[in-house]
Amino acid sequence: MMNDFSFQNTTKVHFGKNAVDKMAAEISKYGKKVLLVYGGRSIKKYGLYDKVREQLKDFELYDYDLVKPNPRHTDINEGGRMCREYGIEAVVAIGGGSAIDSAKAIAGLAKADTQNCWDLVEAKKPIMNALPIFAVPTMASTGSEMDASCVISNLETEEKKGYNGPALRPTVTFDDPTNTFTVPAYQTACGAVDIMSHTIDTKYFSRDDKMDMLYRMMDEHLKTVVKWAPVAVQEPENYDARANLLWAAAWALNSFMTCGVRQFTSVHAMEHELSAVYDMVHGHGIAILMPRWMRYILNENTAPQIARMAYNVYDIPADMPVMEAAEKAIECTEELFFDTLGLKSHLSEMGIDDTRFEEMAVNACGAAGVIHGYVDLTPEDVVKIYRMCL
Amino acid sequence: MMNDFSFQNTTKVHFGKNAVDKMAAEISKYGKKVLLVYGGRSIKKYGLYDKVREQLKDFELYDYDLVKPNPRHTDINEGGRMCREYGIEAVVAIGGGSAIDSAKAIAGLAKADTQNCWDLVEAKKPIMNALPIFAVPTMASTGSEMDASCVISNLETEEKKGYNGPALRPTVTFDDPTNTFTVPAYQTACGAVDIMSHTIDTKYFSRDDKMDMLYRMMDEHLKTVVKWAPVAVQEPENYDARANLLWAAAWALNSFMTCGVRQFTSVHAMEHELSAVYDMVHGHGIAILMPRWMRYILNENTAPQIARMAYNVYDIPADMPVMEAAEKAIECTEELFFDTLGLKSHLSEMGIDDTRFEEMAVNACGAAGVIHGYVDLTPEDVVKIYRMCL
Repeated sequence: MMNDFSFQNTTKVHFGKNAVDKMAAEISKYGKKVLLVYGGRSIKKYGLYDKVREQLKDFELYDYDLVKPNPRHTDINEGGRMCREYGIEAVVAIGGGSAIDSAKAIAGLAKADTQNCWDLVEAKKPIMNALPIFAVPTMASTGSEMDASCVISNLETEEKKGYNGPALRPTVTFDDPTNTFTVPAYQTACGAVDIMSHTIDTKYFSRDDKMDMLYRMMDEHLKTVVKWAPVAVQEPENYDARANLLWAAAWALNSFMTCGVRQFTSVHAMEHELSAVYDMVHGHGIAILMPRWMRYILNENTAPQIARMAYNVYDIPADMPVMEAAEKAIECTEELFFDTLGLKSHLSEMGIDDTRFEEMAVNACGAAGVIHGYVDLTPEDVVKIYRMCL
Repeated sequence: MMNDFSFQNTTKVHFGKNAVDKMAAEISKYGKKVLLVYGGRSIKKYGLYDKVREQLKDFELYDYDLVKPNPRHTDINEGGRMCREYGIEAVVAIGGGSAIDSAKAIAGLAKADTQNCWDLVEAKKPIMNALPIFAVPTMASTGSEMDASCVISNLETEEKKGYNGPALRPTVTFDDPTNTFTVPAYQTACGAVDIMSHTIDTKYFSRDDKMDMLYRMMDEHLKTVVKWAPVAVQEPENYDARANLLWAAAWALNSFMTCGVRQFTSVHAMEHELSAVYDMVHGHGIAILMPRWMRYILNENTAPQIARMAYNVYDIPADMPVMEAAEKAIECTEELFFDTLGLKSHLSEMGIDDTRFEEMAVNACGAAGVIHGYVDLTPEDVVKIYRMCL
């Protein structure tokens, strides 16, 4: 029987070609002193930075330009300091998941009793107070623009953790698919894999009974990405492709489809080690791991859920036997990620060998000594899966 | 190209077998003086009323028991008076759409500058201020528990209109599928038709380009009802059936799937006249009208959208030609509503003849003289559709 659940997502979304034009009206409800949070040079190169400044010309703007692919806790502390010093009243992220996560982390820190964001990580308490957060996503990937958590890295302790809470959910997100037109093919592919993984890894394969309607919506969510990611890679300015991917990214993590399903993240846990040790792009690490993990956990018990993906996402005829269909789902996933989207399929192609697999596997399993998930994985299992990726 | 859109739905949902147990904690954030809004005797008969009173035993409770199938504006005014007299701080609806709509109408009136709710109807301004609204739905039907509008009737002017605005969206809804176990087969069937109509009538058939992902979700939303409504009618205590229908009801109107689609309501406009003149149950009126309307508007332009329903909702093979598939979709809909769910299929079976059709058609078309929709309908069109229902 399905689990009970609670659901709420308060973020307001302005979606479309002129979404950014609504920024001044939305932010002015909260104040005049605004911290702009960004990092990548592309927002300046392609004019989005100037567009936002023009839109917010009547505000007092401060620049935090320290955003990096894995936001660092020392940078977040600097952002917190800026908020206190300048009396910041709203935080605006312009960029991908790292920019939005940085804005959230800073917004929470600005209202906290500490000046060190890592104290909030270690306190493990939901963040109930933060500056209002606004997001202008420039990539379809993490869906951070509609969720309530952030991930930050501590280079001193080599940890990648985060905090979350209702106050970290963006107040308004301005989602203009044209702001993702300039995302290169490789990043587009990695983002698409990330979107799919948020459905597959955390809920599509799971031990819990899912509500029929939501399970069906997950099928269609995955089909949406399977259909449009290749189009976006081939035709970067295809509005329909970019719009579907951008909205799919938000839906993957905004809790709509998750209701009643305990969320696990087996592949994410294994991937974090690839990112940490080899600085691999997250979506690419997921792409390499995901089909191998599916193959590793495939057995008579798991076959029906994996086969569903063949029938409902990849349109494999319903009369194909379950085990065969499950294998087909894995093949179709590999074909999509590696052939159609063009991502390298093996760790060895990226200069990675097995020398650190044992250590990485232990870290991936953490203090529990096991990755709890759809199928629990021990360090020995994880090493085997890493080896399948070589 | 798809339209731009804005989306926000702030309602918190507690969904499951013990949802009502969370009432005291949620409502106590807003105050102690609570107006209980209900009407039907069934909530007393089956113990839900006592369960809510027990849950709220530390609150100061006032009873508004005037809810009727079509909430009357004079009753709402009485509710507003009670709120002012007793200093009500929160309004709790227990019941179906009429109870929840009544609570919303009262909550808005309580904070308005007038003591007559019809002034709010005529002002046609979004309601930005209201008492906090809490809902305990006992039927899967209108989805009022997650939307921001209410409909009330003025018996003096023979009008059925409403008001809406962000302040009318329930703060928290407590959705326990077991609270719908006692809904009789006929009401269950009418509710299911209502849920489907909120997707079909307002967005599934429409002139606007739909976002592919959301169009797919509409398919699955409809499939969910097609699958589970017959089960709920046959097995009233089937939890999965009741849960899927209850959540599908909310999703039909909580704006998730509507994004970017202008909403029309052709069938609803025609049905309002049946309800008004013959006091017909809304969902039953919709059931009789919907397939006839589909048949009336079927032509080469509309066939692809109607055929989609055959392929994607009723699992008709994709190689059936479009026009044939569109006709099949209409037949399947009739079969579902009339054979499987057991609703009477003709107005004549309900003692209704054509004597008032012309007058009703003029009223349905309103001041504009036309029902704007997927296909615009003149009074002559509407009379023809009514005749198809005889």
